[in-house]
Amino acid sequence: MNPDKLKEMLTDLRDGRLSVEQSIERLKHLPFEDIGIAMIDHHRSLRQGAAEVIFGEGKSVSQLINIVTRMQQRDSNILVTRLNSEKAEDLLALFPAGEYDTDGRTFTLLQSPIVPRGRGSIAIVAAGTSDLPVAREATVTARMLGHQVEEIVDVGVAGLHRLLARTESLQRAAVVIVVAGMEGALPSVVGGLVSAPVIAVPTSIGYGAAFNGIAALLGMLNSCASGLTVVNIDNGFGAAFAAHRINLQENS
Amino acid sequence: MNPDKLKEMLTDLRDGRLSVEQSIERLKHLPFEDIGIAMIDHHRSLRQGAAEVIFGEGKSVSQLINIVTRMQQRDSNILVTRLNSEKAEDLLALFPAGEYDTDGRTFTLLQSPIVPRGRGSIAIVAAGTSDLPVAREATVTARMLGHQVEEIVDVGVAGLHRLLARTESLQRAAVVIVVAGMEGALPSVVGGLVSAPVIAVPTSIGYGAAFNGIAALLGMLNSCASGLTVVNIDNGFGAAFAAHRINLQENS
Amino acid sequence: MNPDKLKEMLTDLRDGRLSVEQSIERLKHLPFEDIGIAMIDHHRSLRQGAAEVIFGEGKSVSQLINIVTRMQQRDSNILVTRLNSEKAEDLLALFPAGEYDTDGRTFTLLQSPIVPRGRGSIAIVAAGTSDLPVAREATVTARMLGHQVEEIVDVGVAGLHRLLARTESLQRAAVVIVVAGMEGALPSVVGGLVSAPVIAVPTSIGYGAAFNGIAALLGMLNSCASGLTVVNIDNGFGAAFAAHRINLQENS
Amino acid sequence: MNPDKLKEMLTDLRDGRLSVEQSIERLKHLPFEDIGIAMIDHHRSLRQGAAEVIFGEGKSVSQLINIVTRMQQRDSNILVTRLNSEKAEDLLALFPAGEYDTDGRTFTLLQSPIVPRGRGSIAIVAAGTSDLPVAREATVTARMLGHQVEEIVDVGVAGLHRLLARTESLQRAAVVIVVAGMEGALPSVVGGLVSAPVIAVPTSIGYGAAFNGIAALLGMLNSCASGLTVVNIDNGFGAAFAAHRINLQENS
Amino acid sequence: MNPDKLKEMLTDLRDGRLSVEQSIERLKHLPFEDIGIAMIDHHRSLRQGAAEVIFGEGKSVSQLINIVTRMQQRDSNILVTRLNSEKAEDLLALFPAGEYDTDGRTFTLLQSPIVPRGRGSIAIVAAGTSDLPVAREATVTARMLGHQVEEIVDVGVAGLHRLLARTESLQRAAVVIVVAGMEGALPSVVGGLVSAPVIAVPTSIGYGAAFNGIAALLGMLNSCASGLTVVNIDNGFGAAFAAHRINLQENS
Amino acid sequence: MNPDKLKEMLTDLRDGRLSVEQSIERLKHLPFEDIGIAMIDHHRSLRQGAAEVIFGEGKSVSQLINIVTRMQQRDSNILVTRLNSEKAEDLLALFPAGEYDTDGRTFTLLQSPIVPRGRGSIAIVAAGTSDLPVAREATVTARMLGHQVEEIVDVGVAGLHRLLARTESLQRAAVVIVVAGMEGALPSVVGGLVSAPVIAVPTSIGYGAAFNGIAALLGMLNSCASGLTVVNIDNGFGAAFAAHRINLQENS
Amino acid sequence: MNPDKLKEMLTDLRDGRLSVEQSIERLKHLPFEDIGIAMIDHHRSLRQGAAEVIFGEGKSVSQLINIVTRMQQRDSNILVTRLNSEKAEDLLALFPAGEYDTDGRTFTLLQSPIVPRGRGSIAIVAAGTSDLPVAREATVTARMLGHQVEEIVDVGVAGLHRLLARTESLQRAAVVIVVAGMEGALPSVVGGLVSAPVIAVPTSIGYGAAFNGIAALLGMLNSCASGLTVVNIDNGFGAAFAAHRINLQENS
Amino acid sequence: MNPDKLKEMLTDLRDGRLSVEQSIERLKHLPFEDIGIAMIDHHRSLRQGAAEVIFGEGKSVSQLINIVTRMQQRDSNILVTRLNSEKAEDLLALFPAGEYDTDGRTFTLLQSPIVPRGRGSIAIVAAGTSDLPVAREATVTARMLGHQVEEIVDVGVAGLHRLLARTESLQRAAVVIVVAGMEGALPSVVGGLVSAPVIAVPTSIGYGAAFNGIAALLGMLNSCASGLTVVNIDNGFGAAFAAHRINLQENS
Repeated sequence: MNPDKLKEMLTDLRDGRLSVEQSIERLKHLPFEDIGIAMIDHHRSLRQGAAEVIFGEGKSVSQLINIVTRMQQRDSNILVTRLNSEKAEDLLALFPAGEYDTDGRTFTLLQSPIVPRGRGSIAIVAAGTSDLPVAREATVTARMLGHQVEEIVDVGVAGLHRLLARTESLQRAAVVIVVAGMEGALPSVVGGLVSAPVIAVPTSIGYGAAFNGIAALLGMLNSCASGLTVVNIDNGFGAAFAAHRINLQENS
Repeated sequence: MNPDKLKEMLTDLRDGRLSVEQSIERLKHLPFEDIGIAMIDHHRSLRQGAAEVIFGEGKSVSQLINIVTRMQQRDSNILVTRLNSEKAEDLLALFPAGEYDTDGRTFTLLQSPIVPRGRGSIAIVAAGTSDLPVAREATVTARMLGHQVEEIVDVGVAGLHRLLARTESLQRAAVVIVVAGMEGALPSVVGGLVSAPVIAVPTSIGYGAAFNGIAALLGMLNSCASGLTVVNIDNGFGAAFAAHRINLQENS
Repeated sequence: MNPDKLKEMLTDLRDGRLSVEQSIERLKHLPFEDIGIAMIDHHRSLRQGAAEVIFGEGKSVSQLINIVTRMQQRDSNILVTRLNSEKAEDLLALFPAGEYDTDGRTFTLLQSPIVPRGRGSIAIVAAGTSDLPVAREATVTARMLGHQVEEIVDVGVAGLHRLLARTESLQRAAVVIVVAGMEGALPSVVGGLVSAPVIAVPTSIGYGAAFNGIAALLGMLNSCASGLTVVNIDNGFGAAFAAHRINLQENS
Repeated sequence: MNPDKLKEMLTDLRDGRLSVEQSIERLKHLPFEDIGIAMIDHHRSLRQGAAEVIFGEGKSVSQLINIVTRMQQRDSNILVTRLNSEKAEDLLALFPAGEYDTDGRTFTLLQSPIVPRGRGSIAIVAAGTSDLPVAREATVTARMLGHQVEEIVDVGVAGLHRLLARTESLQRAAVVIVVAGMEGALPSVVGGLVSAPVIAVPTSIGYGAAFNGIAALLGMLNSCASGLTVVNIDNGFGAAFAAHRINLQENS
Repeated sequence: MNPDKLKEMLTDLRDGRLSVEQSIERLKHLPFEDIGIAMIDHHRSLRQGAAEVIFGEGKSVSQLINIVTRMQQRDSNILVTRLNSEKAEDLLALFPAGEYDTDGRTFTLLQSPIVPRGRGSIAIVAAGTSDLPVAREATVTARMLGHQVEEIVDVGVAGLHRLLARTESLQRAAVVIVVAGMEGALPSVVGGLVSAPVIAVPTSIGYGAAFNGIAALLGMLNSCASGLTVVNIDNGFGAAFAAHRINLQENS
Repeated sequence: MNPDKLKEMLTDLRDGRLSVEQSIERLKHLPFEDIGIAMIDHHRSLRQGAAEVIFGEGKSVSQLINIVTRMQQRDSNILVTRLNSEKAEDLLALFPAGEYDTDGRTFTLLQSPIVPRGRGSIAIVAAGTSDLPVAREATVTARMLGHQVEEIVDVGVAGLHRLLARTESLQRAAVVIVVAGMEGALPSVVGGLVSAPVIAVPTSIGYGAAFNGIAALLGMLNSCASGLTVVNIDNGFGAAFAAHRINLQENS
Repeated sequence: MNPDKLKEMLTDLRDGRLSVEQSIERLKHLPFEDIGIAMIDHHRSLRQGAAEVIFGEGKSVSQLINIVTRMQQRDSNILVTRLNSEKAEDLLALFPAGEYDTDGRTFTLLQSPIVPRGRGSIAIVAAGTSDLPVAREATVTARMLGHQVEEIVDVGVAGLHRLLARTESLQRAAVVIVVAGMEGALPSVVGGLVSAPVIAVPTSIGYGAAFNGIAALLGMLNSCASGLTVVNIDNGFGAAFAAHRINLQENS
Repeated sequence: MNPDKLKEMLTDLRDGRLSVEQSIERLKHLPFEDIGIAMIDHHRSLRQGAAEVIFGEGKSVSQLINIVTRMQQRDSNILVTRLNSEKAEDLLALFPAGEYDTDGRTFTLLQSPIVPRGRGSIAIVAAGTSDLPVAREATVTARMLGHQVEEIVDVGVAGLHRLLARTESLQRAAVVIVVAGMEGALPSVVGGLVSAPVIAVPTSIGYGAAFNGIAALLGMLNSCASGLTVVNIDNGFGAAFAAHRINLQENS
C-alpha cells in the first residue's frame, strides 16, 4: 500500500495533478515507511509464520489478556515470556488452547502450524538443573521461531565426563546456546569442543559473590575460548533470538 | 600418526602381541589425542588455511620472534594482535614480507593465499573514528580467517542520517559487527535495521562515567533490540572470530 | 513583614530607641530571612500559583493526611508523588476533589486554576510502555507547575521509524524529556534530532545487567549527542522540575 | 543545493524526463539529507556563526592539523577541546591567529566575529581552584557558541560565606553551571539559591574514595535540590553545550 | 574476683602452697582477664552507669527476652537498637517499665538513674525528616550513655537559611553528629560552621543512584571540610558511641 | 575591622549621615563576614598560631612558590602536604629554613614556635611499614597544629603480641589514629583496647582485591568495635585534623 | 560393568570377532567412563561412607522428597543444606529418622554410622552469634563427612581476651575454619595464632557498607596473615568440604 | 630467656624478695611473650629452616639491602618476592650467591640447605603462559619452604585434552594450586578431577571486563566444584604459603 501511495503521488505529479512544490511538501511529511523504507521494521516480517512475543513480567493480567486477544485476531502464533504461574492460570482459563511451561515460565498459543525455518538444529546446554528455567525459555522461544532444539542438561564443568559424553550431540548442532550460573565456565569448555557459534547465557543462579549473575557474566565475557558471544543475565529469550538470526541465514 | 599408533596397538592385540589387560592399561595412559579424540583440538583445523593467531600484548619482542619463526616453519599464515608499533618495527625488520596495520595494531604474515571461506560478507561498523582501532582489529582478523569484510565508519546514533544512508550495505551482510564506545547505543539501532546476526563490541572509548567501556558494555547487554550478542570490551578479535564461526557454517 | 522588621529596627536606631550596640546584637541573631535574604527560599515563590509537592514514598497515610490538610488550608494546589494505590484510596476518601493517576502514581488536588507559565511546550518521550510510569510522573508534575505537555510513548531505538515519524512533534517542543530504561539509548538519538534542551531520565526498567537503571544512567551520561543532561534513575519529578526551570525563564 | 537537487528530480519527472519508477528508485538511494530531511543534521546549523568543535584527546598533531585546515577553509570558527600544551604549541606555530587557554586546555581560532546568541548570561561556578580546568573548558565553549559568561571560582560549601557573597551574581544568570569535585555538594546549595536552570558537572578532583569523580557524580544525581541536571564527569564542554541549548531558546 | 583470684594464687606461691612451676602452669591457662588484663574488656567499665546495648535486628523475641532478663538481673540500664514495633510490643508486655521510641526503633529500660558523663552537649543534626530514625537512634544512644543531646531536624543544604538560623546551637555543642542521606552534603557545610568534632552518618535515604546510602557515604568521605569523620550507613548507634568516646574524655 | 565597619555604618545611620533605606541596601551587599558572621570562617582562627595548609598534589612548583611566599609574608607557619621530592627540592632551595619529611611527603616552614594546644597526646598507629607515609602525614600535621604525637609502627593484627605489648601507650593517648591497609582490621582490635576516640585511616596499601584501599575502607566502616570513625583512603591529614578538633576541645 | 564392556570389546578383537577398524570406531563413541576414565567422577567415591549432599535452596518440597527418596534407596547418608524450616517440617514428616538443625538450616538422615575419616579435628570459629548459622552449616557438613569438630563462638576481635583464652583449642586443631561478617578481621588474627591451614568464610552479616558480605570477603582476601584461603560468602558447606579435602589427606 | 624471667620473678616472690602486690604489677607490664605466650609469634618457628620472606614491591634498593644484610647475619635463607629486574641486579651485585627468577620476580639467597618438610608434593598449574609469573612465585615460595613442586603450564579449559592428559600428575599431588586469569574456570575443572585440596589463584591477566582479575576471582569463589578455596588476585606467595600450611601437617 505504501509504495503504492508514493507511486500514486509521483504519478499525480507526472500527470500535472500535483505541483513540484506540493510534492516536496508531501515527501517531507510522509511517515518514513510511506516512502519505501518500511524494511526498517523488519521485525514483523522476521516473525511472520513464527510468533509474536510479549514480555510478561510487570504486565497485569488484564493488560496481557488485551494484548493476546488482539494478536489472536491477527491469527498470530503467540509467545508470552516471564509469566508467573498465577497469571498463566488466568490466561489458560481464557485461552484453553494455550500451553504453559512451568519450568520456562512461558505461555504459548499456536494458531497455525510452526513453519520450520532453521538450517540446522540448536543445542541448548544447561550447566545445572537450577539453570533449567533459563534454558527452557530459550528452548520454547527457539521452537516458536521454527527451529529444532536439543536440550542437554546437568553437564557442569566439575564433572567433565558427563559433558564429554555429549560431545557428539554438541558437534552436530548448527548453533550452541550454553546456559550457566555460578562461575559461568561451561561455555569456555564447550567453545573448545565445537566449531559452531556458541552463545553464552549467564544465569543469576548462585549466592554470595555470584552477585546475581555478575560472576557468570564476567566469566563468559572473559572466556579463553575464542569467538564466544554473550547475552544479558537470565536472557534465555535473547539467546534464542540470536540463535534464530544465525540459523535463519540463507547464503547471502 | 596418533590414529596409527592406536591402530598399531589394536593390531598388536589382535595378533596376540599384546594381552587384553595390557591393552586396557595402555588405553588408560595414552594422551587423549592419541586415541582419536583429537577433534577436541578443533582450533588447529578451524584455522587451517586461515591463520595462526598470537596475542601480542605482554609478550616481549624476542618471545614474539620465536613464536613467529616456529609458525613460519609450519608454513602457517600468521596474525599477531595487540602489537604496538615499536615491536612491530622489530618484527618487520626480521620478516619483511609481513604487514603492520597501524590502526588495528595487527601484524600479518601471509605464506599462502587466504582461502575464501565465508557464506556471505561481514559488515564491520564503527560508531566513531575513535572506535576504528577495535573495528580494524576485527577487520584484519576476519580477512585472515577467509572472510570478505565491508567497513562502515563514523555512523554514530546522534547523526542518524549518516547511518540510515548505509542501510542497504548493512542489510546485505551475512553478519554485522558493531563497534561502539561511550553509551554503546549503535548496536540497538543496527539490530532494528537488519535481520542478520549482530555482534556488539563495546570499546573503552569515552571518559568519566564511561568507565573504560563498562557503560558501553552494559548498554549492549541491555539492548532493546532482540537477539544481539556481546563480546568483551575492545575485543575486536573475538567479535571477528564469532562472526567466523557464524559465517563458516555449512548447513549442518 | 521581614523587611519591615529590619526597617523598623533600623528606624528605631535612627530615632534613638536602640543603641548601635543593641542593633549589632539583633542583626547577629535575626534569622537570615528577617534581614532581607528571604529570596534564598525561592522555593515558595517558584511554586506559587503552581503546586506544593510532597514525596509520598515512605510516609504513612496519617502523615500524608496531616500534610495535605495543612496545605489545603493555605489554598495551595497539591501534588503528592510516589504514592501507591492503597494510600491513594485513603486520600481520595478524605479529599474527594483530588485525582489519582494510576500510571504515574501521583495524587493531585487543585484548589485554584493552574496558571500557565511556560514559554513553550514540554515533550515527554518514553522509550517503551514500561517507562510510562516515570514519564507520567513527569507529565503530571510539569502540568501542575503550569506547563503544556505532549507525551510520546513507545518509540524505542530498535524501531527507528516510529521515532522518526514523530520528529516534527519533537522539534516543536521548547524542552524535551526522554525517559528510557534498558540501554538508555533513546536520548542520544533524540539529542541528534532536536536543538532544544534534552533532559534524560534513566529508568530502572530492565533485568540482569540493567542493574536497576545503572546501565541506562551510564548510557545517558556518556551520550555521543552533545549537551544532554541527566537526572537520577526514575526521577520523573526531577526532570519535570528541571524542565520547569528552563521553560519558566524570561529573558534575564 | 540539496533541495534544489530534489526539485530538479521532481521537475524532471513532471516534464517527462524521468519515469515514476526511476523517481522511486532515486528517492530510495539519495542520501537522506538530499530529500529534505537535512534538518536531522541540525548540528551544523546550530553551530553556524558559532564554532566547529574538535575533541582533541587521542588525536595526533597531524590529524588535528588536517581537520583544522579543512575547517579553516570553510571559514568556520574553530574550537579544539582537551588539547595538551605540547600539541597546542604545534597548532599555534601553524595557526598563529589561534589562542590556547592553558587552564581549560582549549585552542580557539576565530575567523569571523562571534555572533551573540544567548537570551541571558551563563554563570559558571567552580567549587575549588582544582575544578578550574573543567570550568574553563565550559567557559571557552560557551563563549565560542555566542554566550556571555561570568566565572565564579573557589566558593566551596565548607566556606559558605564566600558563596553567599556571590548570591546576586548567581541569581542574575539565565543558566548556572556548577563544577565541583570531591563530594559534589555545591550544586545542591546553588540549586537552593537560584530559580534558573542549574547544570552540575562532577570533576575527577579528589583522591581515595572520590573514585575519580564517582563520589561527586552520585552526590549530584542525588541532590536534595529539585530540578538539577547532571553531565558526565569532567564534561565542561557538555555542560556548556547544554547551557547553549537552554539559553538559545526563542519562545517556541 | 579475678584480681582476687590472681592475688590468692600469688599468695599461695609466696606461702609455699604452690610451687613456682605450678604457678607458671596456672598463669598460662588462666583466662586473660584473670591475670589483671581485664582492662582489655573496657566495654563493661565504659558502659557502667550507662547502658548495656543489644543489637535487636535478626534476634528473635525469645532471644531478646532471655538477654534482657539476664541483664535486668544485673541491674543494668538496657538499650535495644534496631527493634521493630512488633517485637517491641512483646518486650513492653513483659517489661512494662521499658520505653519504645517508634522513630528511633529503640527500646530502653532504666533501672537506675543515668549518670551524666559528658563534658559538653552533643548536637545531632538530621538533613531531612526521612533521616530522623537514624538521628533518633543516635539521640537515644547518647542519652543512655549519659550525654545531653540537642536535636536539629530538617536543615538540608538546599534551604541554607534554615541551617544558618541554627548556627549558634551548632557552635555551642561539644560534638556534632550530622545525619544525611541523598547526596550527603550537610556535614561539609556544618564542618565549615563549627570547630568542634563532626561525625557524619550517611543514611540509606534516597532512590536510584543513591544506592542505599553509598552516594551519601562517598560524599562524606570526600568532604571538602577538613577533619570530618564518618561511620557506616545508617549507623546512628555508632555515631553516638563515637561521640561518647569524645565527650567522655577527661584531660588525659 | 569588619565589626568596626558595621559599627561605623550603624553609627552613620544613628547620626543621620545615612538613611534607613541606604542602610538596608548596604546590609544586603556587604560580604557576610562584614556583618559579624565572620565566625563562619573559623578555619583561619582555628589554625592561627598553628599552620596554614596547602595541598601540594597537582600544584606546579611555581604555584607552590607563590603561595608559600605570600604566606611567609603573613608570618604563618606553613604545611605543604602530598609534595613529591622533586618539588620539595625546589622549595628547599628557595626556603632553606623549611624541612621536608621524605616519608610523609610534607614540607614545613616554621616562622614562630608552635603553641601547644592539645589536652592530651595523640597516638598514631601504623599497621605495617608500608602504611608509614600516611601515618607520618598525620604526625606532621598534628604536630604543626600544636599536638604531641606518639608514633607506633608495625603492629599488624597477624602478630598480636607486638600490638599488645604497646597497650599501655595506646591507653594513655587522648585520641588514637590507626592507619592500616590490606584488610584494615587493626582499628577494630585497637578499638577494643582503648576507650578514647579512635580514628581509622584506610590506606591504599595492598594489591589485587585490596582495590587501592576499598577493602580497608569497608573493613573499617564495618568494624565490630563500637564507636570507630573513618576518614578517606590515605587521608592522614584529615585524620590529624579530626584528632585536632577532638583534642582541642575545652569543656564547652 | 564398563570396564567389563571395554574388556569384552578388546577380547572380541583379540578373538577375531571384531576388526581393528570396528574397534577404533567403538572406542571413539564409547562414553568416557566406559573406557576406564570413571575416576574422573571422584565425587561419588569421595563421599562414599560419608554423605550425599543436596543444595536445598530453590528446590520445591516435592523435588526434595524425590531426591531424598532415591538416595535413601541407595542406603546413602544424606545431607540437605540451605533448607528452611517449613520445608524441613515436610521432610521430617516423611523421614522421621531425619534431623533438622534450626541454626544451620541442615537436614540430615543417617542410614549407616558415619565412619571417622579425619587425621585431626576441625576447629570452627564464629566471630559473633550472628555468624552461627554459617558456622553450624560447616559443622554439620564436616561431621557428616566423618570429621570431629570443635565449635568456638563469639570471639570477635574487638574483645581479644575472649579469643586469646581459646588459643590452646585453636592450636590443637588440624584445620581451622573461621566464620566472620562485618569487617572480617578474625581470620587474620587467628592466622597469626596457629600454623594449621585456616579457611576463612565471610558472612553476609552486617549492614550498610557491609554490602552483604563484600566487606568481609575483601577483608579476608587481603589478610595480612600469610596463607589464609577464602570461600564464597556464607559458604559454610564449601569451607567444610575444603577442610575435608585437607583433613582427609593421607601422606601422598 | 623469657620463661626464665617469669620463673625468676615467681621465685623472687616465693623467696620473699618480691611482695604479692609487686608481682601483680610486674605481670601487668611484662610484654606478652615474656609470660610464655611467645608461641603467638609462630611465624618465626614456622619459617625456621625454611626462609625469611620480604615483600619487595614498594621497597627501595637500599631498604632491601639493609634487610637482606641483617637476615644474612642470622644465617637465614631469604626470599624476596615482587622484585623487579632492576632492583634484582643491584641485589645480585652485592649478594652474588643469590638467584633471581625472571618469571616469578623472586630473589632467593640460600645459606643452608633447604630441609624437606612436606608430606607430599605440590602441583602448581597455570592456565596459560601469561599466568606463569604468578605460578612461578608460588613455585619458588613453596620450594623455599621445603616442598617438592611439579609445575604444569598451559592447560586452559578451552583445550581440555591438554589438561586431561595431565590427570595423573594432578591426582598424585598432595595439594594442587591452580593459577588462572580471564574467566578463572580452570580450578573448577581441576577440582572435579582430584580429591586433594585445591587452592585457586586468580590472576590479573585479561583485558576489558576482566577488570584486573575480578572476573577470575568471582569465578573461583563461585566454583561449582565443592571445597575449592581462593586467595587474593596474583597472590602466588599466599597460595604457596597456604599449601605449606596444609602439606606441613603432621597428624594432629
